[in-house]
Amino acid sequence: MLFTPTPIGFVRSDYQQTAEVPKGFGARHDAEGVLEVKPEFEPGLTDIDGFSHLFVIWMFDRSQGFELLGTPPTDTRPHGVFATRSPKRPNPIGLTVVELVRRDGCRLHVRGVDMLDDTPILDIKPYLSSVPADTLRRGWLAEAEKGQY
Amino acid sequence: MLFTPTPIGFVRSDYQQTAEVPKGFGARHDAEGVLEVKPEFEPGLTDIDGFSHLFVIWMFDRSQGFELLGTPPTDTRPHGVFATRSPKRPNPIGLTVVELVRRDGCRLHVRGVDMLDDTPILDIKPYLSSVPADTLRRGWLAEAEKGQY
Repeated sequence: MLFTPTPIGFVRSDYQQTAEVPKGFGARHDAEGVLEVKPEFEPGLTDIDGFSHLFVIWMFDRSQGFELLGTPPTDTRPHGVFATRSPKRPNPIGLTVVELVRRDGCRLHVRGVDMLDDTPILDIKPYLSSVPADTLRRGWLAEAEKGQY
Repeated sequence: MLFTPTPIGFVRSDYQQTAEVPKGFGARHDAEGVLEVKPEFEPGLTDIDGFSHLFVIWMFDRSQGFELLGTPPTDTRPHGVFATRSPKRPNPIGLTVVELVRRDGCRLHVRGVDMLDDTPILDIKPYLSSVPADTLRRGWLAEAEKGQY
């Protein structure tokens, strides 16, 4: 085994079930929530307040098994799991970019939550730089959007 | 335990040791390398060719233990581990944005590698959108840069 994943904390979110999370084109991801870091890890949050955006690495803990090919809600054609954000992945790891609204001790109030309540958090990292919009290509997703609109 | 991490493949990189990876201000991350996905996961790469950039989630397999506070190469002051990219993390998970140059079967030729050769890959996801540059704040890192230049 590579390592033993341990939760550094849990997500507090209004979403109790997958069906409640907005998906597909035009889905707004401005839901607020809290990243509740375990008190023993609080020193690890030192100076995090200065960052506007964070990467949150978390676990799809209510997903079972994986599918190498699947049809996402945004398309009618199947795509490879590594070309989608499907929860049914070989390693059930999720990644979300959130905006840090404020920190309250070991509670990070954030915007952009798409995780379910009680989701285990594996890691938090500062979001340092972006790919310039004019160099970004979004594959099948851009094609599917064109087809739809 | 949350789940048992399994490598979906390995990074092929020119970097054999941590000291070889460019770090600090002005570090260029344009090294080319290969994400060598295991043949049994190749169907999961279907349609990945259309994306210009990918998130690679990988394991710091040559790092041991963690430090909640540490001084990164870019500063003289200690910062919380979750406000840095330090390898000494509670869950030794790394995250890198790479540019997909071309796909050759289960080998993804990419640019922007900062991982060591043989690094286990946990997941690959499409990079879908960026935080606009004018809304991004980079905390202690921006301060440290100002101090230096």
